[in-house]
Amino acid sequence: MSAATPSATTAGTSAGTSAAAPVRTRGPVLVVGTGLLGTSAGLALRARGVEVALADPSPSAAALARDLGAGHLHGPDQAPPALVLVAAPPDVTAAVVAEQLAAWPQAVVTDVASVKRVVLAQLSATGADLSRYVGGHPLAGRERSGAVAGRGDLFAGRPWVLCPTPVTRPEALAAVRDLADDLGASPVVMGAAEHDDAVALTSHVPQVAASLVAARLRGAPDPAVALAGQGLRDVTRIAESDPALWVQILGANAAPVAAALRALRTDLDAVLAALESLAGEDLTGGRTPAGVATSTPTGTGARAALARAIAEGGAGRSRIPGKHGSAPTAYASVFVLVPDTPGELARLLRDTGDAGVNLEEIRLDHSPGQAVGLAELSVLPAARTRLEDVLRSLGWTVHT
Amino acid sequence: MSAATPSATTAGTSAGTSAAAPVRTRGPVLVVGTGLLGTSAGLALRARGVEVALADPSPSAAALARDLGAGHLHGPDQAPPALVLVAAPPDVTAAVVAEQLAAWPQAVVTDVASVKRVVLAQLSATGADLSRYVGGHPLAGRERSGAVAGRGDLFAGRPWVLCPTPVTRPEALAAVRDLADDLGASPVVMGAAEHDDAVALTSHVPQVAASLVAARLRGAPDPAVALAGQGLRDVTRIAESDPALWVQILGANAAPVAAALRALRTDLDAVLAALESLAGEDLTGGRTPAGVATSTPTGTGARAALARAIAEGGAGRSRIPGKHGSAPTAYASVFVLVPDTPGELARLLRDTGDAGVNLEEIRLDHSPGQAVGLAELSVLPAARTRLEDVLRSLGWTVHT
Repeated sequence: MSAATPSATTAGTSAGTSAAAPVRTRGPVLVVGTGLLGTSAGLALRARGVEVALADPSPSAAALARDLGAGHLHGPDQAPPALVLVAAPPDVTAAVVAEQLAAWPQAVVTDVASVKRVVLAQLSATGADLSRYVGGHPLAGRERSGAVAGRGDLFAGRPWVLCPTPVTRPEALAAVRDLADDLGASPVVMGAAEHDDAVALTSHVPQVAASLVAARLRGAPDPAVALAGQGLRDVTRIAESDPALWVQILGANAAPVAAALRALRTDLDAVLAALESLAGEDLTGGRTPAGVATSTPTGTGARAALARAIAEGGAGRSRIPGKHGSAPTAYASVFVLVPDTPGELARLLRDTGDAGVNLEEIRLDHSPGQAVGLAELSVLPAARTRLEDVLRSLGWTVHT
Repeated sequence: MSAATPSATTAGTSAGTSAAAPVRTRGPVLVVGTGLLGTSAGLALRARGVEVALADPSPSAAALARDLGAGHLHGPDQAPPALVLVAAPPDVTAAVVAEQLAAWPQAVVTDVASVKRVVLAQLSATGADLSRYVGGHPLAGRERSGAVAGRGDLFAGRPWVLCPTPVTRPEALAAVRDLADDLGASPVVMGAAEHDDAVALTSHVPQVAASLVAARLRGAPDPAVALAGQGLRDVTRIAESDPALWVQILGANAAPVAAALRALRTDLDAVLAALESLAGEDLTGGRTPAGVATSTPTGTGARAALARAIAEGGAGRSRIPGKHGSAPTAYASVFVLVPDTPGELARLLRDTGDAGVNLEEIRLDHSPGQAVGLAELSVLPAARTRLEDVLRSLGWTVHT
């Protein structure tokens, strides 16, 4: 596992976007909680030369993060931290933040919990000194957890929401903003309620929906699930998430998630009513042998309701920003057949690189039993025709 | 556009899996409807030397498919087809199949509509000769439609459901099975109702869920949708589908989709009840300044309900078969940092190929504003350690 140390260091220095900007975070930084997020922050800060002390309820977890290069273990004789980053599970975050605010009367304290309103309410009830507290939520994560999954570049380019309280001092907010900047993230200041409403829509409702759709497959016959395609796989990918963590997240953001799910249920009921009206129709549409009737007065209204539901989904989907977090950028896709043998994809990408075209994204769809895969190369629209021409001239099968 | 002809031919012959097997389809095959599916079938059959005639209500659509190499235009003087493939929109499929059965008293007729029960019911009502009819549904598609998107390998490795009627003659079923085989698909025989129940779960319910989740984003503030991550993108990807087509599909499979959505709604109501119970709790959990209470008797039951919903989703998700359509195969992932400059990904994949390791899948996640991407290489578990060692020895930053 120690092999990860130089890797993470490399990621934070030579390859990270922020390597050129001067470091603004003033240490020592105390990281409390050395899971994925805490360890990743430690790796990135160490790579930038900031002193990092590590603490965790589990001494072996803290030692592992230390061995990975995320900092040194926090000890009783050390200088008090200037900044404390609490990276604990959501349901203990407020208690740990209160503890840290009390333990270090000069330190700014922030956290990374994915819900902010409940943490602030719990914290307020403790009588903690909120002038030194800034709620935080880096929108970063991986499918695996724990210190070993830590990466110095985990936060690079990701939004990092900052939720100052009404009494947070400006210099406390500035310190946490500097931390986010130094880790390569994009700080975004918003209120705790605004944050919770946003993640209800962008994270918590999608999780519930994915789980509910996937749950329908439990009782399905094998030949039925064998018909699964990419659509089902995409919709249900996050259904593999950890129930224990999600109980904390959903429970701590119950009201906004419930509000969004109630709205979703209203739409669902409209779809259901439309389907039930159509299911009651004669399947043959009252047709005579001479022709096929395609709709009835009842069916027309029901079909309009279905069309509306699908169209509204398209309208909502179109609001998701593109890769660079600003206005959606329409990348052009170039589809190329790639034989399923070692080295072929490499040859394709070498040819792409030789053409001077930079790939924005690549995806290789490999159908079951197929001897060829279809690579989708996403490039800037201006580069598309040139890339297609170059690849064709080199013998590649390009589909447009 | 004519450049697509040799491409598709190549895909169907030298690169397709079925190239070595002798062709069993007896022509001429008449393709009625030259959209994506009809054109793709024509391209694949022509590449295998089968005579293909093309017809479409739009003469220019048929001519385009001909120019792409999918066959010749069907004319009055030509030999009657041995097999007719109806690739029309779902809501006119039965009428077109009935027409073709009447026009060619010796021909076997099949279709590609994604719903089967309603087509059969409509067809039965016409008094058509069902002994020569086999319902069909190739589970293949692309995000774009029309003849230009046609690909000779569209069906390669995909399931192709065959729904014979109770009176379908064995030789008719055999002819359509041969067609599916020759196109590289995997024929699966099932009843029309069984098929419709299956696609309700694997295709239609996911579409509705994706649309409903995406629709929630319509009214969200810009800073909220800016927090969108990969989970939301995956869950809502198919929300961009065509409303007009989906009205036909959902309307034609209304009863099974409604049944599945009612079951989903029951689960949703349980989640909602749990969330509403938790939302009613004191946000501070009745805590004193001394500590944080993490649950209450009410909360415990509600949290159990949330955990059950997430866990049941995980159980359902785990039933989706792996890449090769049989038992799920757990591929091992190797994560490698790739600088965002032309040629680097190619170098990585060349190094992978040189190591003799075959990639099962590749995905390059490129975070906004990041100077490095993280490539996920999926390989057989046995090859993972070797690949990691080789790549590290060549200087790559590998994350495990």
